Amino acid sequence: MNGLLDLVEKTLDEVLPREDVRPRELSAAMRYAVGTGGKRVRPLIALGAAIAAGGRAGDAAYPAAAIELLHNYTLVHDDLPSMDNDEMRRGKPTVWKKFGEVNAILAGDALQALAFSAAAKTPKNAAKVVAALAEAGAGVVAGQVEDIAATGDTAYIYEHKTADLFVAAAAMGALAANADGVSLSSLKSFALNLGLAFQYEDDLLDGDSPYSREETERLAAETTATAIRSLEELPGDASILKNLASRLLGRNV
Amino acid sequence: MNGLLDLVEKTLDEVLPREDVRPRELSAAMRYAVGTGGKRVRPLIALGAAIAAGGRAGDAAYPAAAIELLHNYTLVHDDLPSMDNDEMRRGKPTVWKKFGEVNAILAGDALQALAFSAAAKTPKNAAKVVAALAEAGAGVVAGQVEDIAATGDTAYIYEHKTADLFVAAAAMGALAANADGVSLSSLKSFALNLGLAFQYEDDLLDGDSPYSREETERLAAETTATAIRSLEELPGDASILKNLASRLLGRNV
Repeated sequence: MNGLLDLVEKTLDEVLPREDVRPRELSAAMRYAVGTGGKRVRPLIALGAAIAAGGRAGDAAYPAAAIELLHNYTLVHDDLPSMDNDEMRRGKPTVWKKFGEVNAILAGDALQALAFSAAAKTPKNAAKVVAALAEAGAGVVAGQVEDIAATGDTAYIYEHKTADLFVAAAAMGALAANADGVSLSSLKSFALNLGLAFQYEDDLLDGDSPYSREETERLAAETTATAIRSLEELPGDASILKNLASRLLGRNV
Repeated sequence: MNGLLDLVEKTLDEVLPREDVRPRELSAAMRYAVGTGGKRVRPLIALGAAIAAGGRAGDAAYPAAAIELLHNYTLVHDDLPSMDNDEMRRGKPTVWKKFGEVNAILAGDALQALAFSAAAKTPKNAAKVVAALAEAGAGVVAGQVEDIAATGDTAYIYEHKTADLFVAAAAMGALAANADGVSLSSLKSFALNLGLAFQYEDDLLDGDSPYSREETERLAAETTATAIRSLEELPGDASILKNLASRLLGRNV
C-alpha cells in the first residue's frame, strides 16, 4: 500500500503549482488544501481498480490525483463561512480560516480546474476519464445542495455527496486500465457500496447517524460485504481493494 | 452569425440540467446564470476558429458550450458578496442575489464541472480540448486573485482574467477541427490580442481604464489590428472571426 501512497503523493506534487508560482497565495492555499499524508482513500480506489482490472497502478496515477484534487476542492468550499462554517479540519485551520474567504473560494475553484487538467493527462481513455470525473463533480454538488437544504433524504445525500466520488474513482481507474465493460461495472458496484459503508462509518464516528447505532453498524457491515462480493470475478488482483474495504470498516479515524 | 448563435444556444440547452432535475434550485440557478441570448463572444470564437482552421462549426459545438459555461461560472463567483459584491448583472439580479450565497457558490461549482463534461463530448481531440479548458480555468482564477489583491499589474490581470478564456476558446475550436500546429498558433495569437482589445474596450465603457482615454483607444485599435493580421494565412474561412473582431472594437455594450 505504501508504494501506492507514494505514487499518489508524487503525482499530486507534480500537478500542483509550485509554492513560488504566481499568485503565490493561491499556490500556497491550493497546496495547503491538498496537504500530504492523508488516507487518500479515493486515489487508492482508482489505483486499486486499475490493478483489479488487469492494468498497472501507473495507468491510473493521474486519475488518482484528479479525484483527490476534486475531493479536496469540495472540502474547501464545504468549510466556507456561508456553508458549514468550519474552522478546523484534520487538526489544522481550514483554508478560509488560514487564507481568507476569498482565497478559499478561488483556491477551491482552481483545484477543480486542476483536477480536470490532471484527468486529461491520463494516457489511455482520457476523455472517458474526464467524463466520469465531471459526472461526479456535478453529483457531489447536488448532494451538498440537498444536505444544506436539510431535505432529510439520507439515501440521496449519501449517494451523491460521498458515493459519487468513490464510483468515479473506480470508474476512472478502470477506464485508465482499459477495463472491459463487465469489470467496469463490477468495480463501480464495489465503489458505490464502499462509499455507502464509508458514510455509515462516518456517522458512527461523528455520532450523528439518522439510524440507531446497531442499525448503522449493520448497514455498514452489509454494504462492505456487498462491496467485497463485487470483486469476485475481476481479471486482475483485487486484494488492494479488498484490504481497503476491510480497513475502512471499523476504522477509528 | 445567427446560425452559429442558434447552435450555441441549442448546445447549452442540451447540456444544462432540465429545470425539473433534482435539486431543482440548483438546476434553476445554473440555467439562470447562463441565461439566453447573450453576445456569446467566447463560443463564437470557438466556432469561428473551427471554421477558420478548415473544419465545420459543428466540430466545435461542445467546446463552444464548454467555454461559455466556464465563463459564466466565473461571473457567478466574481459577483459573490465576499468578492465583488455585485447585485445586478446584465440588468437582472445576480445569482447570489436571486438564489442566495450558498446556492451561488454551488451553482458556480456545478457549472465548472458541466463545462468539463461538455468539453469531454468533443468528437475529435477531446482530451486536448479539456486540457486547454483546464489551463484557462486555472489562469482565470489566478487573474482574479491578483485583481482582488489589487496588485496593479494590469498586463497580468488582463492576460489571465480575460484573454486566457479567449485563447482557450480559439484553441479548443481549432483542436476540435483537427487544426495543424501553425493554424492553432495563429488562432491563439488572434484570440490573445482580441482578448486584450476586449478588455481595453471594457475599460473605456466602464470609464475605469488605468490609461488615458486616448491611450486606451490606441491600445484597443492596435491589438485589434494585430488580432486581424493573425488571420491572414488560415486554411479555412476566417471572416467570422474578422467580423467579430471589428464588431467588438467600438461596441457600446
